[in-house]
Amino acid sequence: MAKSYTVAVVGATGAVGEKMMEQLEKRNFPIQHIKFLASKRSAGKNIEFKGQSYLVEEATPEAFDGVDIALFSAGGSVSKLLAPEAAKRGAVVIDNTSAFRMDKDIPLVVPEVNRQDLKSHNGIIANPNCSTIQMVCALQPIKEAFGLNKVIVSTYQAVSGAGAVAINELEAQSATFGDTKNAVAQVLPVKSAETHYPIAFNAIPQIDMFDDNGFTLEEMKMINETKKIMHTPDLSVAATCVRLPVVSGHSESVFIEVDKEGVSVTELRSILEAAQGIEVLDNPAKQQYPMPLYAEGQDAVFVGRIRKDLSNDKGFHMWIVADNLLKGAALNSIQIAEAMIEDGII
Amino acid sequence: MAKSYTVAVVGATGAVGEKMMEQLEKRNFPIQHIKFLASKRSAGKNIEFKGQSYLVEEATPEAFDGVDIALFSAGGSVSKLLAPEAAKRGAVVIDNTSAFRMDKDIPLVVPEVNRQDLKSHNGIIANPNCSTIQMVCALQPIKEAFGLNKVIVSTYQAVSGAGAVAINELEAQSATFGDTKNAVAQVLPVKSAETHYPIAFNAIPQIDMFDDNGFTLEEMKMINETKKIMHTPDLSVAATCVRLPVVSGHSESVFIEVDKEGVSVTELRSILEAAQGIEVLDNPAKQQYPMPLYAEGQDAVFVGRIRKDLSNDKGFHMWIVADNLLKGAALNSIQIAEAMIEDGII
Repeated sequence: MAKSYTVAVVGATGAVGEKMMEQLEKRNFPIQHIKFLASKRSAGKNIEFKGQSYLVEEATPEAFDGVDIALFSAGGSVSKLLAPEAAKRGAVVIDNTSAFRMDKDIPLVVPEVNRQDLKSHNGIIANPNCSTIQMVCALQPIKEAFGLNKVIVSTYQAVSGAGAVAINELEAQSATFGDTKNAVAQVLPVKSAETHYPIAFNAIPQIDMFDDNGFTLEEMKMINETKKIMHTPDLSVAATCVRLPVVSGHSESVFIEVDKEGVSVTELRSILEAAQGIEVLDNPAKQQYPMPLYAEGQDAVFVGRIRKDLSNDKGFHMWIVADNLLKGAALNSIQIAEAMIEDGII
Repeated sequence: MAKSYTVAVVGATGAVGEKMMEQLEKRNFPIQHIKFLASKRSAGKNIEFKGQSYLVEEATPEAFDGVDIALFSAGGSVSKLLAPEAAKRGAVVIDNTSAFRMDKDIPLVVPEVNRQDLKSHNGIIANPNCSTIQMVCALQPIKEAFGLNKVIVSTYQAVSGAGAVAINELEAQSATFGDTKNAVAQVLPVKSAETHYPIAFNAIPQIDMFDDNGFTLEEMKMINETKKIMHTPDLSVAATCVRLPVVSGHSESVFIEVDKEGVSVTELRSILEAAQGIEVLDNPAKQQYPMPLYAEGQDAVFVGRIRKDLSNDKGFHMWIVADNLLKGAALNSIQIAEAMIEDGII
């Protein structure tokens, strides 16, 4: 990585934007110039990066002139408007919103899973949904080793996925122990929705709005994005997505059915242990398994509770946990950029 | 119910015992005499019931002389020792521990599901595990209408299932927002186990100890008890049980596969709406679905998020919530006694 790049961060003041800056610094990303772009309202503010102060500029189409890599995490409408403008000006856009994820001309990439898709980009690469990323990291090596035909996932998702306002709300509501039904609730399950419920000491089976089929959009993202990333349009995927009073770290209870007969838990565990980006934490005798409280701040996708279904030789259960703001968002975006550099695409 | 009965409550000072007393009072159970039994250590204490004060007596075999109905919730070892003694003296024992649940000569009963099994009792009736009870209430009417061949459940369980000490620990840990990794943890996941983890802002994928097959005993209870209660030894059941920072109310994300082809969501919902003990709360357009915070103190088993699997015509998903101390424990025990009285068994 002798070359270095002009990088633009769009939405640097958000929860994911902050983590992106942390990752750029921590991973020593080869930056020649960096610029921070935001709405007209936020332009003129100061932002700290690597001990230096930067002025936030207004995100106009022209602001992307000369930019090599543009990292977007400022909401879907900003991406829809400006990502094509950035791409037109020669930047490679890595977009953390859902704006382009299901566009068939736009690669949706988790480097450990479908790095090869980066080659066919047309200027924009989409970063998948947080809960999808950690799951496909575990599913892909299993699919390659044993085939995969069914996935049923129930999620246990942290409030940080709904932004800093949701974290603040959980903190405030946590002081209402014993009387949480009467706590102020203005953010979850969906800020723009009509009805809000307390998340402290509760579990809300709604993330994002509802589709007509009864699934939420979050559930549909997990279903559709998994198939696209893994190139398995016929894979049977079902999801139930639930928000919990957890600050950071999404957990997933996942049932899978492989194609091959007679696979043992030991074989499946070995495949995961050898997989890139995965850390197996699975020792029941020592009460070792992944938990969101301990995944916070970690890069890896943690997998544990691996066991064979008791009535289906091809069925397995597992418990997958990752930091939703890191591997689920900021880290994966930076890893996409790193992979493109390593593969000579940028 | 003209007749009235001599009732003994064993373990009245525990979390479930207190709820049993509440239910006996609230439901105006036909009590002629009531006595409260406990270990030698607790004997001599005073207990309030229906505005009267009672002396707690030591639970000896002889203490059950003249008792018609004995409600046990003082731990498995107490039940193993004293339930047979009580039965020998002519009492009908309703036992809320796991001591006798899988004993083939002892009925394991949820009145809405297998009330007829009460007739073949030999003095002891077992009350099922909390997470099992609420699930079978929803599964039984579906099985009767459409057949049932597969169940995969992921649970979201409240700390009250681990007793008052677990509730206190969650309350204390909730004040450590942002630094919960360093919180004092002495109760969960299993009080007697070697390692404890904070439950606040966390999700712990362990309830009870581990079996050699990698499942926890709580998961095995859900699997085995479901088959026994529903009389479906060949039903494929799988469970992943997770403890959450929720005070009361267990939630369950349940996937089922029915036998019949072409069942619609509307048909399945109608069956549940007509079922005894079930309250369907399922209106995505109005963001209506069951949540543990609102199930607390309620008798019903709430079912929502009912939807058809997108790739399996016989597959359905649903979200089942109930108060684990009420329908999951105390209420079901009292309902067993009421059913036995109504059916002329006691």
